[in-house]
Amino acid sequence: MPAPGNITRVDFDKASSPINSLLTSYQQVRKQSEILCQKLEIEDYGIQTFEDVSPPKWHLAHVSWFFETFLLKPYVANYRIFHPEFAYLFNSYYETAGSFHPRPERGLLSRPTVKEVYQYRAYVDEHMNQLLTDWDHEQWRDIDSRTWVGIHHEQQHQELLLTDIKYNFAYNPLRPIYNPLHPTYETNKPSVRDLPGLRWIEFDEDLVEIGYKSDGFCYDNELPLNKVFLAPYKLASCLVTNGEFIEFIEARGYQTVRLWLSDAWKTLRTQNWRAPLYWEKSGGQWCYMTLSGMQEINEHAPVCHVSFYEADAYARWKGKRLPTEAEWEVAAKKIPITGNFLESGYLQPITVQANDKLAQMFGDVWEWTQSPYTPYSGYQPLKGTLGEYNGKFMSNQIVLRGGSCLTSKDHIRASYRNFFYPKDRWQCSGFRLAK
Amino acid sequence: MPAPGNITRVDFDKASSPINSLLTSYQQVRKQSEILCQKLEIEDYGIQTFEDVSPPKWHLAHVSWFFETFLLKPYVANYRIFHPEFAYLFNSYYETAGSFHPRPERGLLSRPTVKEVYQYRAYVDEHMNQLLTDWDHEQWRDIDSRTWVGIHHEQQHQELLLTDIKYNFAYNPLRPIYNPLHPTYETNKPSVRDLPGLRWIEFDEDLVEIGYKSDGFCYDNELPLNKVFLAPYKLASCLVTNGEFIEFIEARGYQTVRLWLSDAWKTLRTQNWRAPLYWEKSGGQWCYMTLSGMQEINEHAPVCHVSFYEADAYARWKGKRLPTEAEWEVAAKKIPITGNFLESGYLQPITVQANDKLAQMFGDVWEWTQSPYTPYSGYQPLKGTLGEYNGKFMSNQIVLRGGSCLTSKDHIRASYRNFFYPKDRWQCSGFRLAK
Amino acid sequence: MPAPGNITRVDFDKASSPINSLLTSYQQVRKQSEILCQKLEIEDYGIQTFEDVSPPKWHLAHVSWFFETFLLKPYVANYRIFHPEFAYLFNSYYETAGSFHPRPERGLLSRPTVKEVYQYRAYVDEHMNQLLTDWDHEQWRDIDSRTWVGIHHEQQHQELLLTDIKYNFAYNPLRPIYNPLHPTYETNKPSVRDLPGLRWIEFDEDLVEIGYKSDGFCYDNELPLNKVFLAPYKLASCLVTNGEFIEFIEARGYQTVRLWLSDAWKTLRTQNWRAPLYWEKSGGQWCYMTLSGMQEINEHAPVCHVSFYEADAYARWKGKRLPTEAEWEVAAKKIPITGNFLESGYLQPITVQANDKLAQMFGDVWEWTQSPYTPYSGYQPLKGTLGEYNGKFMSNQIVLRGGSCLTSKDHIRASYRNFFYPKDRWQCSGFRLAK
Amino acid sequence: MPAPGNITRVDFDKASSPINSLLTSYQQVRKQSEILCQKLEIEDYGIQTFEDVSPPKWHLAHVSWFFETFLLKPYVANYRIFHPEFAYLFNSYYETAGSFHPRPERGLLSRPTVKEVYQYRAYVDEHMNQLLTDWDHEQWRDIDSRTWVGIHHEQQHQELLLTDIKYNFAYNPLRPIYNPLHPTYETNKPSVRDLPGLRWIEFDEDLVEIGYKSDGFCYDNELPLNKVFLAPYKLASCLVTNGEFIEFIEARGYQTVRLWLSDAWKTLRTQNWRAPLYWEKSGGQWCYMTLSGMQEINEHAPVCHVSFYEADAYARWKGKRLPTEAEWEVAAKKIPITGNFLESGYLQPITVQANDKLAQMFGDVWEWTQSPYTPYSGYQPLKGTLGEYNGKFMSNQIVLRGGSCLTSKDHIRASYRNFFYPKDRWQCSGFRLAK
Repeated sequence: MPAPGNITRVDFDKASSPINSLLTSYQQVRKQSEILCQKLEIEDYGIQTFEDVSPPKWHLAHVSWFFETFLLKPYVANYRIFHPEFAYLFNSYYETAGSFHPRPERGLLSRPTVKEVYQYRAYVDEHMNQLLTDWDHEQWRDIDSRTWVGIHHEQQHQELLLTDIKYNFAYNPLRPIYNPLHPTYETNKPSVRDLPGLRWIEFDEDLVEIGYKSDGFCYDNELPLNKVFLAPYKLASCLVTNGEFIEFIEARGYQTVRLWLSDAWKTLRTQNWRAPLYWEKSGGQWCYMTLSGMQEINEHAPVCHVSFYEADAYARWKGKRLPTEAEWEVAAKKIPITGNFLESGYLQPITVQANDKLAQMFGDVWEWTQSPYTPYSGYQPLKGTLGEYNGKFMSNQIVLRGGSCLTSKDHIRASYRNFFYPKDRWQCSGFRLAK
Repeated sequence: MPAPGNITRVDFDKASSPINSLLTSYQQVRKQSEILCQKLEIEDYGIQTFEDVSPPKWHLAHVSWFFETFLLKPYVANYRIFHPEFAYLFNSYYETAGSFHPRPERGLLSRPTVKEVYQYRAYVDEHMNQLLTDWDHEQWRDIDSRTWVGIHHEQQHQELLLTDIKYNFAYNPLRPIYNPLHPTYETNKPSVRDLPGLRWIEFDEDLVEIGYKSDGFCYDNELPLNKVFLAPYKLASCLVTNGEFIEFIEARGYQTVRLWLSDAWKTLRTQNWRAPLYWEKSGGQWCYMTLSGMQEINEHAPVCHVSFYEADAYARWKGKRLPTEAEWEVAAKKIPITGNFLESGYLQPITVQANDKLAQMFGDVWEWTQSPYTPYSGYQPLKGTLGEYNGKFMSNQIVLRGGSCLTSKDHIRASYRNFFYPKDRWQCSGFRLAK
Repeated sequence: MPAPGNITRVDFDKASSPINSLLTSYQQVRKQSEILCQKLEIEDYGIQTFEDVSPPKWHLAHVSWFFETFLLKPYVANYRIFHPEFAYLFNSYYETAGSFHPRPERGLLSRPTVKEVYQYRAYVDEHMNQLLTDWDHEQWRDIDSRTWVGIHHEQQHQELLLTDIKYNFAYNPLRPIYNPLHPTYETNKPSVRDLPGLRWIEFDEDLVEIGYKSDGFCYDNELPLNKVFLAPYKLASCLVTNGEFIEFIEARGYQTVRLWLSDAWKTLRTQNWRAPLYWEKSGGQWCYMTLSGMQEINEHAPVCHVSFYEADAYARWKGKRLPTEAEWEVAAKKIPITGNFLESGYLQPITVQANDKLAQMFGDVWEWTQSPYTPYSGYQPLKGTLGEYNGKFMSNQIVLRGGSCLTSKDHIRASYRNFFYPKDRWQCSGFRLAK
Repeated sequence: MPAPGNITRVDFDKASSPINSLLTSYQQVRKQSEILCQKLEIEDYGIQTFEDVSPPKWHLAHVSWFFETFLLKPYVANYRIFHPEFAYLFNSYYETAGSFHPRPERGLLSRPTVKEVYQYRAYVDEHMNQLLTDWDHEQWRDIDSRTWVGIHHEQQHQELLLTDIKYNFAYNPLRPIYNPLHPTYETNKPSVRDLPGLRWIEFDEDLVEIGYKSDGFCYDNELPLNKVFLAPYKLASCLVTNGEFIEFIEARGYQTVRLWLSDAWKTLRTQNWRAPLYWEKSGGQWCYMTLSGMQEINEHAPVCHVSFYEADAYARWKGKRLPTEAEWEVAAKKIPITGNFLESGYLQPITVQANDKLAQMFGDVWEWTQSPYTPYSGYQPLKGTLGEYNGKFMSNQIVLRGGSCLTSKDHIRASYRNFFYPKDRWQCSGFRLAK
């Protein structure tokens, strides 16, 4: 197990030579996962308080199973798997890779122990380190491209690891703390109301291309380039804030049926929603659970942990709408990728900064669009079992864009398409308005 | 109750003067609903064998409640409602019109009796007849437009009435017959294999407008006109047939996980799907339940009662895809609206006719597209409670186009957008391929 | 279908000769079932608003299936069954007689129609009438004993028919009326408080025998005679009344956890119990649904439609207990079988009469005992499929004694053991205290 | 945390002076709980794989909460509770002691950690040690009697701790081992078939008294003495063995509906029972999960982990029955309390020894009787919240007698009444026949 200590994010950037870069990136990402778990107690590794979250132990093992299954088994001669049952226990959803342990029961396994999972990681790393220096391997091209998928896959799970820990801790009446508040978090709150007014950034009618077109890494779902006609539109310069969302709550938005989609209203009633996830009112003051325990709400920070349904209802209340993913992407491609990512160490969205341009497009919160997650025209999934990575989820989900305060900076792109069900709220999801 | 007799469809066409037309159309549609029920036993009116279907009695009362609520109550001075509890019992889903009886429990009410429901219809008709000749009414414009909504609404329920009777009868081990086979149904099957080969109809890249742009009736969800860029595409000239779908079944399509979307596979396993709804294999021969009882499958007719998930899996198996709704609409606008509708009396899809053009675009089966049901850019729902008609269903559903063998011919348009959940199969839903 | 008319109960008593008696009793019981349905609408015959109730149509057909299966098929040469599917549709729970239609789905069948069910009854009656005059039949002994089972079985279903109609009608917001109030029901309420005080009737310690020991009909579960030691005990002379139960409600009995068994509390919370079944408070006045529609509660009548759990909690609140079935039976055997049965036409419990002896032991309400339903020592079920009649229910249920206002007078005995689950409330169940 | 080591059961017997005895017994029982957990991994302490089992951590904390709540808080002046949330987290079911954490969610709490739970135990022990030497305490009498309840309560949880660990480990595909097989377990199996034949031990008709009548400790449910009449009966000298139960399985007992009670059959079908819990057939050989991992079945050992429903079906198949609790107790009071208890270290039932007397009445397996768990005539629960200990469970459960291989020897008595639902199988439950 890694020695305990402060979470100080390793400096992590791709080196110049593509080959060095791959190995270094692999090693950095693997180390990062363990750093994120440094402050957990053994007991924290095993629990699953809700079907959609997974135990930290499971995340750590699953990402290793991914490398073992898609790299070591096919490309390392005479590779001996670490344990014959792990393929069953740590396959997430790859049906064509065999049967797997039921998702809602991931928290019911005390064995393998945490120690054994770290041994599994070390075993996989040892063999991956060898494979990634075997530059003459005749399938190097496949190894290279699959390893990059594995690296980005592990980054995705790092974000889930944190959202899942947050969910598990929020469930516990003792409300444990994952990490103390960032030292500058409080001072980050503007003491005077020097906040930007909302501005509407205009975009003309255009026939545009969306999708990824550089030569770095991207997922299959960002391809091929798609030509889309956009009517003129405007995007809000700022994300909707907690303070603004409180106005919606106080205007009885959660009780006003005409604001809600039909499926949204059913969900709201079944789950008894009255505020975003993790919000509680205590003595007249709204508070929320954070990775630093219960905190008073920062009214100037973007609202977070809302579902698509809530974002959509808020927009209807305001007489506005959510942007389409094409509208968002066109705007995002005009600005640099900067923002409040995992590396900042805040671990939650921060105050909206004064600015008359598009702000906080990247980082802070994943932004709900109004676009259902469907394939781009001409979409081709990856070959074989890895084709299950993205393609099979293209129904009933909604696209989110831009990354969050728990996303690694080098994981995000303007063309990046994240997706969750419209009812999901346990991710760092917020929104901005369009019209 | 209407006198029993044969189901002979009234000749039903809009007269020349718009005012005459409205009253005549109202009367014809109202009569049509009762004709469709002529052959039911009293007991058939009351049952609901599945949450998504409604008892015939409920349909008959609900469409009357619609006229009472949206026309008679607001526009007839001193109108006395027929029964104070009926607003609770026969409101379908208009939350802003008050609370309503739970949908899954519509089959648990023996009262009002069928006779009382027909009395309710007669009472509403009597007052509607008066209102629709009160041409000097100062709100005539609203009356006119709302009555047209009510007429088309009742036509929609006529189709549901038949699909729901089919579901209820298929559930019963006695397998009752709603109507005998149409006399020419059998001869309609080609005795020799003079069937058309599949042809691919090509369409060029284009920037098109979709939506309704004539001056007749359309629903709010067909507006406003939307400009959409289409890459070049091809549509299959024919619908996928039962015979072709049997090949998919025999190739173990229902057991091949990689063909299915993730949510599709969960549904398939939960509901134990192995063939389209109503199909049974009996002595090596595929049969299906029809409104004329159990029948051998016509291999040359379009496959029907498949979900979006099955259509999508079939398309993936063939290396093809489903069309988008824009692709379908562009093609449909080039051809006349003819086909096998309710008026033909077949009550089921018929054999694909030899043709090297687009065939069976209208009638026979609703065609699944790959397009999630979302608002057109600039969409405005109707004002007030009627705004719940379409807008609130714009999440998680998929667009179907073209009408079916149970749709009235004058109900359908090229721009008409029907929508169901991707798992739904009890409607007459089939599909054609695109690439 | 029988001609409509008033429910005037046929005079119904067993004739002198055992053979005449059988045929006459058969005919009277069969006629009685149809009389009980005279005032139903066709629609009322088909519904099932709750898993434990059955549609009236189903009851009428099931009791006929019983005679067809256990009498006509085995004992009538070349008997042709009425319809091959009816064995599947109308078998209740006889697993060894073949598979059967799922109980919760009995209300989903519009066919056979009510008319066809009456044809079925007529067909069975015609053949039974022949069989029951075939006195030289070599299996006459079996025919005789099984027919008596069938007769008593149909009487049981007559009671269920009424309790189920009551449940179905109470569910309907229109609150239909099955039969108007009995003309003397109101005058039956004492205008002055000339009611009996509760008296405790004492019984000495004794070694007693319980069970049936005459030569008439009894069920297998009343045999063989069982010797039981009873410590001294006292029984309340009266049943607990509605007025007394209101005191329990007003003392927050339903909110006081220590009064309730663990399983009782779970049930109470899951089902949100706050009063007996069918009770509603309207403008400060307790009312209840009856077979004559909603009525104000008669405070002097026995409380009815309470579960064992509620009876037990009330007794604990009073520092008393419920009697055991042996205690009840010993007392009941000392008094004649008189009371408010179906024949009185009240169809609900009536005011407790002044009396210093045990009152209302028979009729009015089934009395919960504290005895789980278990076999008497030496119990032998009937041979063959009929052995499923009673024996297989001997777990998890509680014995009730004495019959109710919906029981036929000639159906009940002091040794009669009825049984329901401790949570069941839709039967006419009340209780008296013991100590 | 206790130092790891072998599980060597402490010698544990009550000392002579009642006062010494209490403190010593307290200390020994407390130590015993920790010894039972010595070989667990931290991860094993937290999981709950099924609603009826609890995490080991929860058991350890709950029994401490019991002493804190019922002894320290009422009797120690100025006692400061260890943690304000623990009353919520570790109350099992005492409704009158406040609200509590939902039972099915006990496995979702990573905090308090195992270390903190051991700190809680130490804190409670420290204060209990003081209280139990405060012999002049004016409420010493209550302290003494409540502490004895707490001691026996902790012993009960020690048995549950082991059955729950077994369930959790059996769920895990890795099938962990709690403790290696006892060294003499294998040699304990008779190498030659020198096993006893079944003998029937006869008992005469008698009027007997059951219940506890010595001056040691007993639970409230064993009182007061109850006079019961018993007809002549016979008890099997031996428990039903695994080998005998295999005959039942092979005779298709699990497929023969007439052998099963109605509720039993529903349970069997819902849960897909085909053998006792933990049994698996592997290569033609029956195996079962034990606390020493998967093992071949010992055909000569008593069958274990069967529900009442299975015991009852087996008895019916044999034309026999289960004994009543009175029959069992009368027989048990004639013999000494010896057998295979926790102290033997086998941790599972052992081979039936040759003997022509009643064998294995105590230890090995809890024996299902046919008696529903009801109060003895005149039963009085303990005062206050402790009254919830036994009384509120007196519905729907069945009495078991005699203790098991996981019961402490000094915990059991001939009058001891254990109780579980008739469907429960995760306890060490078996049975013997009667007739």
